[in-house]
Amino acid sequence: MASDRPRYAFEDFQVGHVIACGSRTVRADEIVAFAKQFDPQPFHVDEDAAARSIYGSLIASGWHTAALVMRLVCDAYLLDSTSAGSPGIDELRWLKPVRAGDTIRADLVTIEVRPSKSKPDRGVVVSEWRVYNQREELVMTNRGMSLFLRRDASTVA
Amino acid sequence: MASDRPRYAFEDFQVGHVIACGSRTVRADEIVAFAKQFDPQPFHVDEDAAARSIYGSLIASGWHTAALVMRLVCDAYLLDSTSAGSPGIDELRWLKPVRAGDTIRADLVTIEVRPSKSKPDRGVVVSEWRVYNQREELVMTNRGMSLFLRRDASTVA
Repeated sequence: MASDRPRYAFEDFQVGHVIACGSRTVRADEIVAFAKQFDPQPFHVDEDAAARSIYGSLIASGWHTAALVMRLVCDAYLLDSTSAGSPGIDELRWLKPVRAGDTIRADLVTIEVRPSKSKPDRGVVVSEWRVYNQREELVMTNRGMSLFLRRDASTVA
Repeated sequence: MASDRPRYAFEDFQVGHVIACGSRTVRADEIVAFAKQFDPQPFHVDEDAAARSIYGSLIASGWHTAALVMRLVCDAYLLDSTSAGSPGIDELRWLKPVRAGDTIRADLVTIEVRPSKSKPDRGVVVSEWRVYNQREELVMTNRGMSLFLRRDASTVA
């Protein structure tokens, strides 16, 4: 949770900086629960249908993987920052399936730092998630934008 | 759920085709529940903190909005198709906050149809979600790829 003195404000980001965001094992029951709510395609909700699909076993919805990584990112640094949301994503790739029992971990790399031209108290940081499984295979990448306030504006965040 | 004869197979997509994907009202309690699990930033989980943020009131996690639209897309056509997952997203924009009580609706527009060069039984369809709120303001766009099998390959989907 952002405190009065968050660790990360806009001016703290530097291109090339890497934050290790920890890891998370993905259970079959949570793959199915998420997918029943948001993405009930057969290969996300039904073990038998998944076995007959091109994937051969149950896989997580890509949106579920993204949400799980978002939580890793929150816990690793975002909740201790002046984060003020995201304008969007420029390139997201689901490179390999995330299967039940897989353990995913994420690194976050700062790609670009852009001060706002119209609002001097904030700026956009472009960063990339690099998400690996327990075999060190890259399963997902996500290059997105995050809005951060400068430290002296952070009381409104 | 994909039946033996799904309505949408790869060969059914045409550039410019629009599918209206219905609408969904987003409740405060589900905004908070999703965010507590996946994106517990103050403006997604705490009404008071949200009131003090640059947003002024509780807003949905962008990942939650995406997941809710994914469900609209599933129900509108994807579950009655040969869908075989997604390689990724080329551009996603969260243009305006989605607030508690907002009703979002989505149109899906086919942008490009690319037969696979290596696997003749499938291809990629590039489509764009255009997500509006109850004031017809565009709140989110998402241009992404979806893999579809051709109809005569659809028994494995």
